Amino acid sequence: MGQIKIRDIKTILTAPNGVDLVVVKVETTEPELYGIGCATFTQRYAAVKTAVDEYLRPLLMGKPVNNIEDIWQLSAGNSYWRNGPVLNNAISGVDEALWDIKGKMAGMPVYELIGGKCRPAAAVYRHADGRDEKEVLENVQKYMDEGYRYVRVQMGTYGGQMNGAKQNLHSPEGIPEGAYFDPAQYTRGVIRMFETIRNALGNSVELCHDIHERLVPVAALNLAKELEQYHLFFLEDALPPEHVEWFRMFRRQTATPIAMGELFVNPQEWKPLVAEQLIDFIRVHLSMIGGLTPAKKLAVLCESFGIRTAWHGPNDITPVGVAAQLHLDLTSPNFGVQEFFGFSDLEREIFKGCPEVKDGYLYPNDKPGFGIEFDEELAKKYPCEYRDHGWLRSRLPDGTAVRP
Amino acid sequence: MGQIKIRDIKTILTAPNGVDLVVVKVETTEPELYGIGCATFTQRYAAVKTAVDEYLRPLLMGKPVNNIEDIWQLSAGNSYWRNGPVLNNAISGVDEALWDIKGKMAGMPVYELIGGKCRPAAAVYRHADGRDEKEVLENVQKYMDEGYRYVRVQMGTYGGQMNGAKQNLHSPEGIPEGAYFDPAQYTRGVIRMFETIRNALGNSVELCHDIHERLVPVAALNLAKELEQYHLFFLEDALPPEHVEWFRMFRRQTATPIAMGELFVNPQEWKPLVAEQLIDFIRVHLSMIGGLTPAKKLAVLCESFGIRTAWHGPNDITPVGVAAQLHLDLTSPNFGVQEFFGFSDLEREIFKGCPEVKDGYLYPNDKPGFGIEFDEELAKKYPCEYRDHGWLRSRLPDGTAVRP
Amino acid sequence: MGQIKIRDIKTILTAPNGVDLVVVKVETTEPELYGIGCATFTQRYAAVKTAVDEYLRPLLMGKPVNNIEDIWQLSAGNSYWRNGPVLNNAISGVDEALWDIKGKMAGMPVYELIGGKCRPAAAVYRHADGRDEKEVLENVQKYMDEGYRYVRVQMGTYGGQMNGAKQNLHSPEGIPEGAYFDPAQYTRGVIRMFETIRNALGNSVELCHDIHERLVPVAALNLAKELEQYHLFFLEDALPPEHVEWFRMFRRQTATPIAMGELFVNPQEWKPLVAEQLIDFIRVHLSMIGGLTPAKKLAVLCESFGIRTAWHGPNDITPVGVAAQLHLDLTSPNFGVQEFFGFSDLEREIFKGCPEVKDGYLYPNDKPGFGIEFDEELAKKYPCEYRDHGWLRSRLPDGTAVRP
Amino acid sequence: MGQIKIRDIKTILTAPNGVDLVVVKVETTEPELYGIGCATFTQRYAAVKTAVDEYLRPLLMGKPVNNIEDIWQLSAGNSYWRNGPVLNNAISGVDEALWDIKGKMAGMPVYELIGGKCRPAAAVYRHADGRDEKEVLENVQKYMDEGYRYVRVQMGTYGGQMNGAKQNLHSPEGIPEGAYFDPAQYTRGVIRMFETIRNALGNSVELCHDIHERLVPVAALNLAKELEQYHLFFLEDALPPEHVEWFRMFRRQTATPIAMGELFVNPQEWKPLVAEQLIDFIRVHLSMIGGLTPAKKLAVLCESFGIRTAWHGPNDITPVGVAAQLHLDLTSPNFGVQEFFGFSDLEREIFKGCPEVKDGYLYPNDKPGFGIEFDEELAKKYPCEYRDHGWLRSRLPDGTAVRP
Repeated sequence: MGQIKIRDIKTILTAPNGVDLVVVKVETTEPELYGIGCATFTQRYAAVKTAVDEYLRPLLMGKPVNNIEDIWQLSAGNSYWRNGPVLNNAISGVDEALWDIKGKMAGMPVYELIGGKCRPAAAVYRHADGRDEKEVLENVQKYMDEGYRYVRVQMGTYGGQMNGAKQNLHSPEGIPEGAYFDPAQYTRGVIRMFETIRNALGNSVELCHDIHERLVPVAALNLAKELEQYHLFFLEDALPPEHVEWFRMFRRQTATPIAMGELFVNPQEWKPLVAEQLIDFIRVHLSMIGGLTPAKKLAVLCESFGIRTAWHGPNDITPVGVAAQLHLDLTSPNFGVQEFFGFSDLEREIFKGCPEVKDGYLYPNDKPGFGIEFDEELAKKYPCEYRDHGWLRSRLPDGTAVRP
Repeated sequence: MGQIKIRDIKTILTAPNGVDLVVVKVETTEPELYGIGCATFTQRYAAVKTAVDEYLRPLLMGKPVNNIEDIWQLSAGNSYWRNGPVLNNAISGVDEALWDIKGKMAGMPVYELIGGKCRPAAAVYRHADGRDEKEVLENVQKYMDEGYRYVRVQMGTYGGQMNGAKQNLHSPEGIPEGAYFDPAQYTRGVIRMFETIRNALGNSVELCHDIHERLVPVAALNLAKELEQYHLFFLEDALPPEHVEWFRMFRRQTATPIAMGELFVNPQEWKPLVAEQLIDFIRVHLSMIGGLTPAKKLAVLCESFGIRTAWHGPNDITPVGVAAQLHLDLTSPNFGVQEFFGFSDLEREIFKGCPEVKDGYLYPNDKPGFGIEFDEELAKKYPCEYRDHGWLRSRLPDGTAVRP
Repeated sequence: MGQIKIRDIKTILTAPNGVDLVVVKVETTEPELYGIGCATFTQRYAAVKTAVDEYLRPLLMGKPVNNIEDIWQLSAGNSYWRNGPVLNNAISGVDEALWDIKGKMAGMPVYELIGGKCRPAAAVYRHADGRDEKEVLENVQKYMDEGYRYVRVQMGTYGGQMNGAKQNLHSPEGIPEGAYFDPAQYTRGVIRMFETIRNALGNSVELCHDIHERLVPVAALNLAKELEQYHLFFLEDALPPEHVEWFRMFRRQTATPIAMGELFVNPQEWKPLVAEQLIDFIRVHLSMIGGLTPAKKLAVLCESFGIRTAWHGPNDITPVGVAAQLHLDLTSPNFGVQEFFGFSDLEREIFKGCPEVKDGYLYPNDKPGFGIEFDEELAKKYPCEYRDHGWLRSRLPDGTAVRP
Repeated sequence: MGQIKIRDIKTILTAPNGVDLVVVKVETTEPELYGIGCATFTQRYAAVKTAVDEYLRPLLMGKPVNNIEDIWQLSAGNSYWRNGPVLNNAISGVDEALWDIKGKMAGMPVYELIGGKCRPAAAVYRHADGRDEKEVLENVQKYMDEGYRYVRVQMGTYGGQMNGAKQNLHSPEGIPEGAYFDPAQYTRGVIRMFETIRNALGNSVELCHDIHERLVPVAALNLAKELEQYHLFFLEDALPPEHVEWFRMFRRQTATPIAMGELFVNPQEWKPLVAEQLIDFIRVHLSMIGGLTPAKKLAVLCESFGIRTAWHGPNDITPVGVAAQLHLDLTSPNFGVQEFFGFSDLEREIFKGCPEVKDGYLYPNDKPGFGIEFDEELAKKYPCEYRDHGWLRSRLPDGTAVRP
C-alpha cells in the first residue's frame, strides 16, 4: 500500500446553489483511486484555490497517500505562518481527500477507520427564520412536522438586520453604505420570539439561537441570562472570537448552554475555553481548522473535558464536508447535535451519495471512504463568482463597521 | 479631503534578491497620489495576491482614502473568518498604503501622524551565523566593527540544522526526505557558542538567540535557564505559538528575557502573554497581523504592560514594510530593538528612499508618507516563483515532521 | 518641519458659564500658528495654572512642536512624582495643544491623524434630573423629543441629596455643616424612578444612572442587581476609585453594565479592571489622565479587551476638550457613547467652531486641528474665582464626611 | 478643646540648602498655638502652595483643630479628583500641622498620641555614593565609623548616570539634550560594586541599593537575582510604579528583599503589593500620600501582612517631615529602617529641635507635638526658585525619554 502516491491535486470551484464551494480532489498513482475533501471558505474561495494549486500541490505530489498525519504536519509547517482560514481550508481539502482515499483502499467508510459508530445516525438541527415571531413559529412547526427535534430560531436574519430597514434606524448624517442593524431592536425581538414559541410549543422542541457576535459582551450576557427561562439547547456565538475571555463572566452568572467556535481557526482560540469548561458545545467548521484530522483531535479534547460537538454546517460547505462531519459525529461519544442545511437536487447530482435525513436524523451511506462520487465536469458548469455579501459589510446605526 | 477616493488597488510581486515580496499599491482619484504597503507572506505570496486582487480590490474601490480605521475594520470583517496570515497580509498591504497616502496628503512622514519621534533612530540587531562557534564569533566581531551593538547568534542556521548533515543522525530506516536536525546536538552547540563568545567579548555586545520553536517546551526551558549566565538581550521563539502557555513555567524559573511573536497572526495568541507579562519583547511581523494600524495598537497594549517591541524584520519584508516598522519604532516609547537585514542595491533602486543604517542605528528619510518611491516597472522585471524552502520541511532524527 | 518650536505656553482661566475652565495655549515660532488644549480641573484650576506656568513652560520652551510623544514622556517624568490630577491636567493642556498644532501643520482635523473616522458623528447622552420621578420622566421625554436616544437619569442630584433636606435626616446632635444625603433614601428613590420611567417609556430609550460613589460597595452591588430588570445602558461610578476591587464581586452576580473611571488619574486604577474585563465602559476625563495621547492609548487598551469608551464630559470641560473627546470618539472602533452637556452662546463665541449636536449626534467641524478658534481676550473677561461647591462637602446622616 | 479653631493656614517656601521645601503652618484661635507640617513636593513646590493657599485655606478656616480625621477626609473629597502628589502634599501639610497642634494641646509628643514608643530610637540608613567602587567603599566605611549599620550604596548617582559622560554612549545622531545613562553599564557597575564591598567588609554592614526605576522589568529581575548572593538588606524601586505587577515574577524567582513605594501616591498602587506580600518594605514619602494620618494607616496595613516600613527620607523633606516619620517609626511594631540624610546647621536654626542621630540611631526630642519650633522669618530669607534638575530629563543612549 505504501507505493500508492499522490499523482495530482486539483481544486474545483463550484456554485450549484449560488454559494461558492471549494472541492479538492487528490488523484493517486492508482488509476480510478481518488479522494475529495472540502476546502470551502466561501468568502475567499479563490485564495484557497491559489494556496492549494500553487503551494500544496507541488509540496505533496509524489508523497505516499497513506501517511495522513505526516502530510498534515508537513503542510501546516510548510507555510511557516499558519493557523489561518485560507491555509487551513487548503490543508483540509487534501486531508479529507486522503481520508476518503484511505477508506476506499480499506473498502470501508471512514467512520470505520476512526473508531466505528457510536450511534447509527446524527440528530440534526435546522435553521428557522422569519420576518416576525409568527413566521418563525410557523417554520419551527414545519420542521417539527418533518421530524426534527432541534431547531435554531432567528428573526429577520442574524442580528435582526433587515434589508431596506435602514430608514427605521436613528443614524447620523453621512453614514456609509452597509448592512445596518440595531442591537437593541434585535435583543427585544429575540426575547419576544422565544416567549411566543415557548408559549405555543412548550418544551416539545429543543431550541437554539445564534447571536452571531452581534452584541457587545455585556449585552450578550444580559440576553443569555434573560433567555435562561426559555431553556435553550444552546446559545451560539455570544461573543466574537477576539473576546472569548468574557465567557468566564457568563459562567458565573448563567447556565444557558454555550455553543462557540464556528469562527475559530487557531488552537489558542479554543484551548482555554475547553480546558476551563467555558463552553458546552464546540462548533468549529471542520475545514476552517484544517479538516478531519484536527477536528477528530478537537472532539477528543472536548470529550476529555465534558464538552459536546455541534460542528458548523450551513450551506457554505460541500456535501463531502457534511459527510466528514457526519462520520465524525457517529464516532464521537461526546457528539451533541449536527447543524444541517439540506441539499439541492443539483448538489445531489454533482455529489452522488449525499448523507440523507430521516425523521430528524442524518444518515451516511455505507460506501467506502466518505461514499461520495464527485462529478467534476458537472461541477465546473456552475462556476464561482465574486459576490458582494451585504451582511459582510455590517454596521451599527451610527455607521460603525462591526464584525458580522 | 473626503473626496479623494481609492481608484485602484494593485498587487505587485517582486523578488529582486531571490526572496518573494508582495507590494500593494493603492492609487487614488488624485493623479500622482498613491501609496504602497507591504503584504509579504513570502511562503504563500500568490495567495495574498489573490486575496487582494479578487476580494479587497472590489470591496474597497471608491472608498474614501482617509478613513483608515474604518477600512481596516470593514476589510477584517468582510471575510467573516479572519485572523490568518494570508488575509492579514492582504489587509496590511492596503492599510500601509493608506497611511503612506495620508502622510503625503499631510505633507508629513507617517511618524509625525502617529505621535512624532521619541528618538532620532532605531537601534537594530543583525544576524550572525556560522558553521561553528569560531565563525559565529568572527561574524559578531565584524558587525561590532561596523557599529552594531546588538547581534543575534546562531550556529548552523536555526536549530543547528546543517545541510548534508543527515548522515550524523541516529535515524531509523525509511525516513522521508526533509531538513533534518537534532535538538540535542543543537542545544549543546548553543551553550558552547555562548561560552565562546562571552569569553572572547565579555559583555561588550548585546546577544540574542532564536530557538525557532525547535525544542519541546521543557527542553526550551532548560536551555533558557542554562543561558541565563550569558546575559542574553533576549531569547526568541522558545515555544511554538501553539504552546505559549508554557511561558508561565518559564516565568517561574528563569529571568532570561523572552522575545516572542513573529509567528503570531491572532489576538488570542498575544493577549494573555501581554496581560500576564509572560514575555519581554513582542516580535510580530507587522503585515502578518494586518499592518501598521493593528501593530500600533499592539505596541500600545504592550506599553501598558511594560513590554518592549522588537518587530520581526529579516529579508522577507519589503523596504516599505521596513519603513513602516521604523516609523512605529521611532514613535513608540516602549521600543526595544529592531531586527534588520539590510538592502541590496537593486532593492534600493526599486524602492527609492530606503531607510539607512549608520553606526548600528536605522534612520528614516524625512519625506512625506513612508518616503519611498516605488519603481513598479523595474520591480516586475524580477518576478516571484515557487521555491522549495528546505527548512520548511523540517524533521527530527526519527523522521517526525515538525514546525520549522 | 522640525524647525517649528514652542515659543511660549500660556494658561488662560475663564468661566463664561460660572464654571472654572482652564485653557492652555501653545504658541510657536511660526507666526499665527498656535494650538489650544483643555487642562480643566475645575475644583483646583489655580494649581493647574501654576503647574503649567512655573514648570512646563520653562521645561518645554524651545522644544520642537512635533515630537508630541516625547514631550508627553518628558513632562510626565520631569516631576518625578506623577499620576495626579493637577499635573496630568497641565500635561493635557500642552498635549492637546500640540495635536491641534500638528493638525494645522498637516491641514487636517486631528481625527485624520489618529486613524480617520469610524463613524460620521458620536451619539451623546444627556443628563436628566428632577426633584421627583415625575420631573425626571418629563426631562427624559424632553430630551427624546430633541432626538437624543441616551439619557442619564438622576433624582435630586447625585446621591439623592436635596438642598435644605437635612431636617428629614435622622442625625445625632452636633453634626457639622455639609451636604447631607441618606444612602437608603437614595437607593429606594432610584428604583422607584426606574420603575416609573420604564413603565412610561418601555425600552424606547437607553437609560444610564450614576451612583457617584455614594454607596458602600455591597449596597452598590445590591442596587446593581435590583436595577438589572430595568436594562440600563450602564451604571456609573458604582464604587469609588479606592475600592474598585469590589467589581470582581459585581461580575459574579450581575450583568448590569458597568461604566467606571471619571475619577481615575493613575494607570494602576484602570489596568486591572480592563485586563480582567471588570467594566464595560471606560469613563475617564481626558485631561485628568494627561490628554489625548494617553487617552488614545487607553481607548486602544480597552478595544483589545472588548470594553467601550464613554468619556466623562459634563460642563467642567472646555469646548476644545469636548472636541478632543469627539475626535477620539470618531476614530475609536470601540466607541460606546459620549457624555455631553451643551455649550452656551458665550462659550461658542469664545471658542469658535464648537462641535454641534443634531438629532442626538455630536459632529465636529472639519477644520484643521481641533477646528476651534480661541478668543483669548474675550475669555479673560470672565475670570475664574474660588467657589465653595456644596456637594464637595458631602456627609452621611450621622455626620461622616464621605467622598462625593 | 472643641472651641479651638483654625484661624489661618500659611504656606512657607524655603530652600536653606538649595533644595525647595514646603512648610504648612496652621495657626489657631489660641494665640501662640500653631502647628507645622511638611508639604514638600520639591519638583512642583509652587503648585502645592497654590493648592493650600487657594483651596484648603478657604475650605478649612474656622474648622475645629481637633477633628483631624474628619478634616483629612473632607480635604481629600473636596477636590473630587484626588490621589495625586500635589494635592496629597497640600493635605499632608495641614494634617501634620494638626497633629503637631494636638500634641501641644496634650502637652505630649505626637508619638505618645499614636500609641507610645515601641523602641527608643530608629535605626537609619545613609546614602553612600562614589565615582567608582573604591570611593563607594570608602564612604561606606566612613558611615560605619560614625556608627551606622545600614548604608545604601550607589555608584555615579542613580542609574550610573554621569554628567558629561554622554561621549561614552553609543548614540544616534540628533539626540536631544538630557541626562543620559546606559542601563547595561549601570548593571555591570552595580555587581562590581557589591563584589568589592562584600569582599572588603563581609557581612558586617547591611547594604541597600536603589535601582531607581532605571531598568526595564526583566533587567531589574536579572539584577535582583544576581545580587542575591550579596545579601542586600533591600533593593529599592526595582520597577516604576506603573509596572509593579512584575513583582509577582520577582517573588517566584528571587528572595532579594524588595523595598518599594517612594513614588506611590494612590492606594491602588500599594494595596495589591501589600495584600499579596509582593514587597518587604513600604517606602512611601509621607507627604506624598497625604501626611501622617494615611501613613499611620499604611503602616498598620503592612503590619497586618508582615511588611516593614522604610519611609522615603532624603533631603527633599523638611525636618518636621523627618520628625513625623520618626514618630511613626517609634510607634510601629513593624518598623524596618529609616532613610536619613542629615541636617545642615541652617536647617537646624530654622527648624529648632531637629531629631538627632547618635551611633546610627535617630532620636526625637521629647517636646510636645513634633517638638520643632519654626523660624518663619528666617526661612523666608532662603526663597525657593525654579531649578532645572538634570536627572529629571533622563534619556537612554538612543535618545528615549524615560521616567527618572
